Amino acid sequence: MAKKSSSEKLYKQAQKVLAGGVSRNTVYHEPFPDYANVASGCYITDIEGTARIDFANNMAALIHGHSFPPVIDAVIEQLKKGTAYTLASEIEVAYAKHLIKRVESFERIRFVNSGTEAVMAMIKASRAFTGRSKIAKAEGTYHGTYDFAEVSQTANPTNWGDINHPASVLLAHGTPKSVSRDVIIFPYNDVERTLSILDRHADEIACVIIDPVPHRVGLMRGTNEFIEAVYAWTRKNDALLVFDEVITFRVNYGGTQEDYKVKPDLTSLGKIIGGGFPVGAVAGRADVMKVFDPHEKNLLLPHSGTFSANPITMTAGYKAMQYFDKKAVTKLNALTQKAISQIREAIQLAGVPVSVTGAGSMFRMHFKATPPTTYREAYLSKEAGALVKELLDYMYYEEKILMINTFSCMLSTVMTQKEIDRLTEGLFRAFKAFKPRIEKLNNS
Amino acid sequence: MAKKSSSEKLYKQAQKVLAGGVSRNTVYHEPFPDYANVASGCYITDIEGTARIDFANNMAALIHGHSFPPVIDAVIEQLKKGTAYTLASEIEVAYAKHLIKRVESFERIRFVNSGTEAVMAMIKASRAFTGRSKIAKAEGTYHGTYDFAEVSQTANPTNWGDINHPASVLLAHGTPKSVSRDVIIFPYNDVERTLSILDRHADEIACVIIDPVPHRVGLMRGTNEFIEAVYAWTRKNDALLVFDEVITFRVNYGGTQEDYKVKPDLTSLGKIIGGGFPVGAVAGRADVMKVFDPHEKNLLLPHSGTFSANPITMTAGYKAMQYFDKKAVTKLNALTQKAISQIREAIQLAGVPVSVTGAGSMFRMHFKATPPTTYREAYLSKEAGALVKELLDYMYYEEKILMINTFSCMLSTVMTQKEIDRLTEGLFRAFKAFKPRIEKLNNS
Repeated sequence: MAKKSSSEKLYKQAQKVLAGGVSRNTVYHEPFPDYANVASGCYITDIEGTARIDFANNMAALIHGHSFPPVIDAVIEQLKKGTAYTLASEIEVAYAKHLIKRVESFERIRFVNSGTEAVMAMIKASRAFTGRSKIAKAEGTYHGTYDFAEVSQTANPTNWGDINHPASVLLAHGTPKSVSRDVIIFPYNDVERTLSILDRHADEIACVIIDPVPHRVGLMRGTNEFIEAVYAWTRKNDALLVFDEVITFRVNYGGTQEDYKVKPDLTSLGKIIGGGFPVGAVAGRADVMKVFDPHEKNLLLPHSGTFSANPITMTAGYKAMQYFDKKAVTKLNALTQKAISQIREAIQLAGVPVSVTGAGSMFRMHFKATPPTTYREAYLSKEAGALVKELLDYMYYEEKILMINTFSCMLSTVMTQKEIDRLTEGLFRAFKAFKPRIEKLNNS
Repeated sequence: MAKKSSSEKLYKQAQKVLAGGVSRNTVYHEPFPDYANVASGCYITDIEGTARIDFANNMAALIHGHSFPPVIDAVIEQLKKGTAYTLASEIEVAYAKHLIKRVESFERIRFVNSGTEAVMAMIKASRAFTGRSKIAKAEGTYHGTYDFAEVSQTANPTNWGDINHPASVLLAHGTPKSVSRDVIIFPYNDVERTLSILDRHADEIACVIIDPVPHRVGLMRGTNEFIEAVYAWTRKNDALLVFDEVITFRVNYGGTQEDYKVKPDLTSLGKIIGGGFPVGAVAGRADVMKVFDPHEKNLLLPHSGTFSANPITMTAGYKAMQYFDKKAVTKLNALTQKAISQIREAIQLAGVPVSVTGAGSMFRMHFKATPPTTYREAYLSKEAGALVKELLDYMYYEEKILMINTFSCMLSTVMTQKEIDRLTEGLFRAFKAFKPRIEKLNNS
């Protein structure tokens, strides 16, 4: 590992002012995190001057990489006109129109400031519309930091319980116990068990939340069969089917939901739709979205936000999404397919039991010859977790490649074959170096 | 009212894509909201070309008004280096140092993306630290859109119950009933009743949340006696005293808390500390903030956020706060005192029963000769609410002055005597025009 005295020194200061020395646990790293100096396109350079290829893209939030000139130029123009008003702005209307044209299930939209706020607003809207207070979510899915959305996010073998009725595991210490009673947990992609669990709460469920390619579960797609079965269940039981597409919206021009025959009632968005700036949104059926409408005499869901739909985020997001047109999506997904093919070749050449899951411009690798299909299968043992960390450190320090800490990559449109080759070659060397330990994991 | 065909036309389009035609209920206005074209300093111009003095400052979020050159210049510099990374950044450390130096009670800080997220993180941190799940808040206070923070935010005579044990009134339809059991409501500034209510839940309360100048309650200061009594109660009962200073941080160089002998354990921040960009933060005692620390083997509060501490918000916020130094605070507060004096003169000259409450650079007017001291006193009847709306419309359309919809003003450092005079003269004309109706309210 290279000496990094500047970052180390800075981190010592950071520990005296920031909780744990970081503002996001995502950037936390032993023995210390690196500090970014400048990022441009698909490269990020730290304050020691080391440039790396960025396959993390701020946790999948940057679809065009860093400092994308059309976004930067548009933002500079808007900066001179103000960054936030107590009035409405034209750009929020223009951008809303764009997103609604883009996705069949979007009839009305409301912007917020983060994915966490988007999921919270979506859950509250579902409750307000149905008058029911419980929600159902899959074991292992990440949906932000709202208590109800957090349940069983990191369930593990010591607490997850019988697969036929998975436990509702609270995440944060001190969370009211009632939260666990208000959140029903089902096993992702397991039609039979999920329907049986939902049936037990048929009259109480406001919405079933689905991430169509859940990153923390294992980044495997929700099967058609599963999505359609849950949809049918919600129709029969007057509940809503809601999608968390904060991460997965990048998969197609109109989000991952394009791939299914059935459509969600509501969708939460975030990440790439901000063009690099803080953003969230909830969009969906006009009759459901009416719960937000201040014209209503009996307003079911009072909701505001100081920075919601601020003109900087709207400007950046709109520009980013205009450039992420159908052609750009197709090209990026093809490049990602190419990357996955090359990685599979590297896996074969190195002879390691590794598999790849993913969709669109995202993929994740697993230390298993057969790709996992459930959260419990994908779950990393302590040993596997430690090995992922070491392998990512190798990629980061030796190969100069930044990936997401689940051994995942989220690509950007500014990447080319050159970056894919560097990734593949780096991974090949990593697979060879770590082969005995990967094999040991599989045999233990 | 002037004809506003462009805004009206735009709003018709907005209603087809945004829930209720707006992204924030704050900007909703009958018959339609105006759309901003450009804002600079303390003036905001709509798309019809009408310029107004901005006393709303994006709901108190802009301490230097719009497009403050030092902030804009610094942001343009940072834009070229990236807007969001999966690495740490130097600016977050520098800004954290600045804020911690600024306020005695701040030992560690964590940045988030909005005031809503800040309060949610503060409540979750309090629960995680104490292992208790209930919180106590004052009737009528606004603390963002987290269900637990929303309880009794708009309690009214039909549901607020006996003042000796105010009801926990859920805000959004469908909120789990358990939320009301987990939130204890007390009457602001009422020492005896508050202590008696808290005593009934002595072993269960994680934190008592105080907004030291609660805008929606009536923008009156928490009395020393009240704050000290609540503090003493929390010491005796192993609970935390936490402040919501999202709005009130502007009152002094170190927030409103500077004015009290006792200090909160945690404080949530937002609004002005983002320099016009989406922001939130929670800061306070190092031992409490440790619940966020990812070094801990048993991490009590896992917490992350894609856009938290992004370098644009950090750059803008740090610059804004550097310019909001002790001298700037003193000058702005003096200008506000001048405005309040002039308004009181106008009230006297017009002979209307109106009073003014406030602190620092904020004030609110009430249709009562004696300033209200409690939420229930300050509560607007339907008639009073309608009159405030009409008066604000008069100020907006005729006097070209934008205020906050509670009949409040939040000043910015770029204002001068000229804007204060226009405000005072406008209000004087309004008081005279509305005098019979204001008097009728007081006699009904």
